[in-house]
Amino acid sequence: MTTTAHQATDTARRYRRACDYAAAAMIYLKDNVLLREPLRREHLKPRLLGHWGTCPGITLLHSGLNGLVRRTGQRALLVTGPGHGAPAVHANLWLEGTHAELDPALGRDGAGLAELVRRFSRPGGFPSHLSPEVPGVLHEGGELGYALATAFGAAFDKPDLLVACLVGDGEAETGPTAGSWHANKFLSPRTDGAVLPVLHLNGYKISSPTVYGCMDDEELTAYFRGAGWAPHVVDVTRTDDPDALLAETLDLAHAGIAAVRERWEPGERAVWPMLVLRSPKGWGVPAHDAAGEPLEGTFRAHQVPLGGVHDDDAEFALLERWLRSYRPEELFDADGRPHDDLLAELPPAELRLGRAPEANGGRLRRDLPLPDIAPFAVDVPAPGSASASPTGTAGEWLAELVRATEDRRDFRVVCPDELESNKLGALLEATDRAFTWPVPDTAEHVAPGGRVLEVLSEHLCQGWLQGYLLTGRHGLFPCYEAFASIVDSMVNQHAKFLKMAGEVPWREPVASLNYLLTSEGWRQEHNGYSHQGPGFINNLLTKKASTARVYLPPDANTLLVTLRRCLASTDRINLVVAGKNEGAQWLDLDAAERHCAAGAGVWEWACHGDGDPDVVLACAGGIPTAEVLAAATVLRDRAPDLTVRVVNVVDLLSLAPADRHPHGLADEDFAACFPDGVPVVFGFHGYPSAVHETLHGRRGAERFHVHGYLEEGTTTTPYDLLVSNRMSRHDLAADALRRTGRDDTAVLAERDGLRAAAHRDGVDPEAVTGWRWGA
Amino acid sequence: MTTTAHQATDTARRYRRACDYAAAAMIYLKDNVLLREPLRREHLKPRLLGHWGTCPGITLLHSGLNGLVRRTGQRALLVTGPGHGAPAVHANLWLEGTHAELDPALGRDGAGLAELVRRFSRPGGFPSHLSPEVPGVLHEGGELGYALATAFGAAFDKPDLLVACLVGDGEAETGPTAGSWHANKFLSPRTDGAVLPVLHLNGYKISSPTVYGCMDDEELTAYFRGAGWAPHVVDVTRTDDPDALLAETLDLAHAGIAAVRERWEPGERAVWPMLVLRSPKGWGVPAHDAAGEPLEGTFRAHQVPLGGVHDDDAEFALLERWLRSYRPEELFDADGRPHDDLLAELPPAELRLGRAPEANGGRLRRDLPLPDIAPFAVDVPAPGSASASPTGTAGEWLAELVRATEDRRDFRVVCPDELESNKLGALLEATDRAFTWPVPDTAEHVAPGGRVLEVLSEHLCQGWLQGYLLTGRHGLFPCYEAFASIVDSMVNQHAKFLKMAGEVPWREPVASLNYLLTSEGWRQEHNGYSHQGPGFINNLLTKKASTARVYLPPDANTLLVTLRRCLASTDRINLVVAGKNEGAQWLDLDAAERHCAAGAGVWEWACHGDGDPDVVLACAGGIPTAEVLAAATVLRDRAPDLTVRVVNVVDLLSLAPADRHPHGLADEDFAACFPDGVPVVFGFHGYPSAVHETLHGRRGAERFHVHGYLEEGTTTTPYDLLVSNRMSRHDLAADALRRTGRDDTAVLAERDGLRAAAHRDGVDPEAVTGWRWGA
Repeated sequence: MTTTAHQATDTARRYRRACDYAAAAMIYLKDNVLLREPLRREHLKPRLLGHWGTCPGITLLHSGLNGLVRRTGQRALLVTGPGHGAPAVHANLWLEGTHAELDPALGRDGAGLAELVRRFSRPGGFPSHLSPEVPGVLHEGGELGYALATAFGAAFDKPDLLVACLVGDGEAETGPTAGSWHANKFLSPRTDGAVLPVLHLNGYKISSPTVYGCMDDEELTAYFRGAGWAPHVVDVTRTDDPDALLAETLDLAHAGIAAVRERWEPGERAVWPMLVLRSPKGWGVPAHDAAGEPLEGTFRAHQVPLGGVHDDDAEFALLERWLRSYRPEELFDADGRPHDDLLAELPPAELRLGRAPEANGGRLRRDLPLPDIAPFAVDVPAPGSASASPTGTAGEWLAELVRATEDRRDFRVVCPDELESNKLGALLEATDRAFTWPVPDTAEHVAPGGRVLEVLSEHLCQGWLQGYLLTGRHGLFPCYEAFASIVDSMVNQHAKFLKMAGEVPWREPVASLNYLLTSEGWRQEHNGYSHQGPGFINNLLTKKASTARVYLPPDANTLLVTLRRCLASTDRINLVVAGKNEGAQWLDLDAAERHCAAGAGVWEWACHGDGDPDVVLACAGGIPTAEVLAAATVLRDRAPDLTVRVVNVVDLLSLAPADRHPHGLADEDFAACFPDGVPVVFGFHGYPSAVHETLHGRRGAERFHVHGYLEEGTTTTPYDLLVSNRMSRHDLAADALRRTGRDDTAVLAERDGLRAAAHRDGVDPEAVTGWRWGA
Repeated sequence: MTTTAHQATDTARRYRRACDYAAAAMIYLKDNVLLREPLRREHLKPRLLGHWGTCPGITLLHSGLNGLVRRTGQRALLVTGPGHGAPAVHANLWLEGTHAELDPALGRDGAGLAELVRRFSRPGGFPSHLSPEVPGVLHEGGELGYALATAFGAAFDKPDLLVACLVGDGEAETGPTAGSWHANKFLSPRTDGAVLPVLHLNGYKISSPTVYGCMDDEELTAYFRGAGWAPHVVDVTRTDDPDALLAETLDLAHAGIAAVRERWEPGERAVWPMLVLRSPKGWGVPAHDAAGEPLEGTFRAHQVPLGGVHDDDAEFALLERWLRSYRPEELFDADGRPHDDLLAELPPAELRLGRAPEANGGRLRRDLPLPDIAPFAVDVPAPGSASASPTGTAGEWLAELVRATEDRRDFRVVCPDELESNKLGALLEATDRAFTWPVPDTAEHVAPGGRVLEVLSEHLCQGWLQGYLLTGRHGLFPCYEAFASIVDSMVNQHAKFLKMAGEVPWREPVASLNYLLTSEGWRQEHNGYSHQGPGFINNLLTKKASTARVYLPPDANTLLVTLRRCLASTDRINLVVAGKNEGAQWLDLDAAERHCAAGAGVWEWACHGDGDPDVVLACAGGIPTAEVLAAATVLRDRAPDLTVRVVNVVDLLSLAPADRHPHGLADEDFAACFPDGVPVVFGFHGYPSAVHETLHGRRGAERFHVHGYLEEGTTTTPYDLLVSNRMSRHDLAADALRRTGRDDTAVLAERDGLRAAAHRDGVDPEAVTGWRWGA
């Protein structure tokens, strides 16, 4: 090794000592943070909250990446999977000066360090996990599984960026992470950045050994080679100089990345490097605790080692010895400033990991050049007079958006291989499906660098899109409705990220997370019961009012207006549920614009009768809207004396009281739709409970009789499915008759006859398929 | 090849021709199902619903397994991942005679075949996908990702069983499947069955090429070797005799399994065989469609090839030519019975794949020998006088259950490495964590054959447990509450399975799926916001009333009673939310029994004041119960004139109207808890919407003012977190004061002072930590 290299690794070792010390201090201390005096019990935090186990490994990688960036000038970002290693990340951010820049109270001196140490895991301070409050973070890492997918999302369309991603061996056991190793096959060496995964094996989860930690190097190497990576193992227990070993390996990896970039040709595999990093859990903590149990390298080092320090003198003594083993007095000057040499291996200020602009993506976000929707709108001379596929129509407009962003490359569509099935195939005229591995000759619309990402993993789609959005770009996630629930939990975490990011002064708004849920349960003849489930709406309704939006555009033009709105919005999770099948169209573009702006409104042309309504037929969602309109026709024929009002709801949250949700209609507007005391028969796309809970707090909410999905389904005809869930036009009309004191026998008999015919013939009778509004 | 082997493969080829023919017929025909006359348009189904692409591959495997079972006498079960290949499975079940046994209308003759063909994808008939209506099925395969985990679940504790599992290359892309390949490391060669995964590569999903289909044999072999398997590639395009090749490979695999069983010693890796099966998508369909586009081996063969047969003469002609290419007249006799030779390679009747007893696990299920709970109950001389950890208490009882089932081995606990964290560590005194790969010396309670399955994958836990339950066993899934949503979608599908299975006459009830959600959001100082999310309750509330149960036992004894009930129940999804931290205990065992039997009730000892209540303080969940009791104390001190009733709800669905849920309290019992017109201030564990939607339909539901989780959280003190969500004792008391026309200023001021102290000191003041009931 050269003298310079020796110096570099000596510096790195001292740098890591400082970080490890600071991280440990964050967990234990509230005072005497530089140990200038003997440690006393009153210096300890009253509540010891944090996780030590992964911290030294995180700092090793952070430090190694610092060196790589300094040597190469490579722009880099670090996605840290084990978010509970926050103390290590804070320590690095403090040493590199990022903390000081964003908050002067966290200056790179003794006072700043004391403040950082105090703030950690304290009410009003920094949470124990990584979170949006922490610079450089775009992935929380509390719920494990998504770091690697997020890293890929960050790398797409960023050819000059290296996204390093630390994956813990606990996280590696999750399905989403296991699936994410194949994301390499979607990255284009020409147009995308590189992802450098670092699988960090410290052997233990909370208390069990890890699966990957129990695999030997041969297994690991075969596994990752098979997945298309060039793996490099870095084992700190088999070297005297972990920093040098890591530095060499990172240089190798960086060279490997450059080689892929230079030499790769379309049609070839792009085999990127990745690292397997073995280091003992809690590396640096005493080998044994006061009771003599093994500590370093075991599950006991996971959270707060020596947790008995408040009461146990031996543990307390051990803690002081451990903390002093980092010799803080050699690392910080009299004012608590880190010695200059510690900072010598840091990258130039603009390249520090905590300052990657992509980690505060809102600052990079530019409004999308959304095409005018008018040329794409369906011509609807009169309600019901035109037929179109809502998603098919939207697909043409989205394709134009793809073309309009061809140079910017900041809009992508992720989808679990359902784009064509969802009638969004027009997108594939404007771009391809991204895929870099060799494909069969018969594959169509597949090419490296395509801006549609199709993979049969909702988790990957979601992780990619989150990473893409949080680094300042835009996107859309079309998905079969029933399978959106696969990412319920990821949505929960993204909603939390948005909520917290909104409270951080230096975070700028990011583009909204937009779902277009199609292939709804009401039209699932090919698939049946497993494909019927509208519960994603319910999950989204549990989110903050500032975050969640739910739209159910009933036709193509309202879908266009809605998508335009969603793609222009920031910091929201927009859920759009729309039909894909060809069907009757209700509103021309002007009417659609007005209706969507209002959120809900009376469809005068569908009402009948004189004076105040006896009953309101309300609807939300494509199929329910068609059924409600048909029910109005049934009522016109069967009960001509009845005054019927038809209300369509495009923005579900317009039903919420205005003091509970910003989209809630003012009381007078609500009453204009649903006059006090008038019964409402509501045809709803999803579970009735979603409407009931949205209405909660509205006066007279109990007069809303909501029909929706009752969890009845199989492979059957559309009409039979509606009847099974009491949502057919006849069920709705019958309910309206009952609510207004009329007899429903004849209507129900008609329903039963039609249903029997469907069972007999295997198809719906023309009375329900041939129906057109106005007929 | 020997003459016998030649005969065998000739038979297999004819058997497959019959199956492929029948499967195709199911998709297209309603009449003339044996093509005894020229095909005419009126023989076609009016709606062509189904998926052809994977069918021939499924039949190849089915046929190969039949041969293996016949040759070896091995008991086997087949879990079919691509559930949309249902026509192939039906064809095999019909040929092996399983269909005829369970339904005489599906006899093994022309009439039976005609009926099967007609029923497929028809209203009232068989759904287009595998489902509980189909014999041999314990995994639906509509939502992809879970077949492999389910197969492992089926194999645990079944040492004489071989569970073959067909994994499609679409499904293989999902995270849960990718994670499931490592489940081999949890299987004990001594006490568990074998899983034989068959990764079926046909190259395409709905329209994109598949990731695994684009990997070459070298990559695939390395990948699976690395994951600890011994992979065998079977490529039907590279052999003249696919049946012989598959038969040889299955024999090899079977020998490999036997070798593992015989030679494996604890401490060694158990490297089981697995197959990679390459066959063209839609194998056997015409090479090109009528428009000249490639069909066989492409995405166009995925669903209904030649979909234009109703209108397009050329496609219609192509269909007839294709169907006749199977030469049905050579396969079936004049009565439509399959020729005897087709059946020659079938296993003996009792070993047919469709008749594996495990696929109708309810028939194997035995009631658990549930230990008496009394010896484990906490002694509670007076409410609040004892302290205990609810899950810690339950853990001791569960450990006894593990001991009581030591010989039966039909009870398992799955958990994402949170058992100790959830204070269920007592279980590990009764058994170990199952793990077969070598582990570090410092690992504890880890051994092959352990009956606790800990892996950091909620997906794997859930898949394992589903497979275990559906094959007739019992289990419990303790999980951090916030991360249970990771399996929302799997729960949705399991609920669907239970619902449909309940409608199948020959299916017997299976043990309930039991969740014990701990580590609730209200006590998450170590982790913070990402670990706070009670939305799993909301998802479960969307399920059928016959399926879903939600219990919130407020202390240890109610938890014991609840768990005993759940573990004795069948066909339910029981959600139990309970605390893990040491805390005050309210009910002695007798009171707990009575309270749990009622579902909800007045806690007289906590009420105060004379006469009818002015306000009801209601609570559900451990922390809310403690806060509500404390609020009652606040009110007693601050508003002694107020008559306060305290109601605890242990069974959330007791709040539902009795006509909506079988657990709903009768109106008079409901009114006995919540008298008409009296305001209710409700402290709820989860999102308030869960209570509101449960109450929907109850008279006067609008007088329930529910406090719960408002999606506010971070790493902070328990009291601060409660205040953030307006759920502290002071918020509850203040609300009660407001609802009864009293001033709440002083109470809120006290709250703010206590909160400020928590922020100042980093710990909650003793006024809220030191509080005990009665103090």
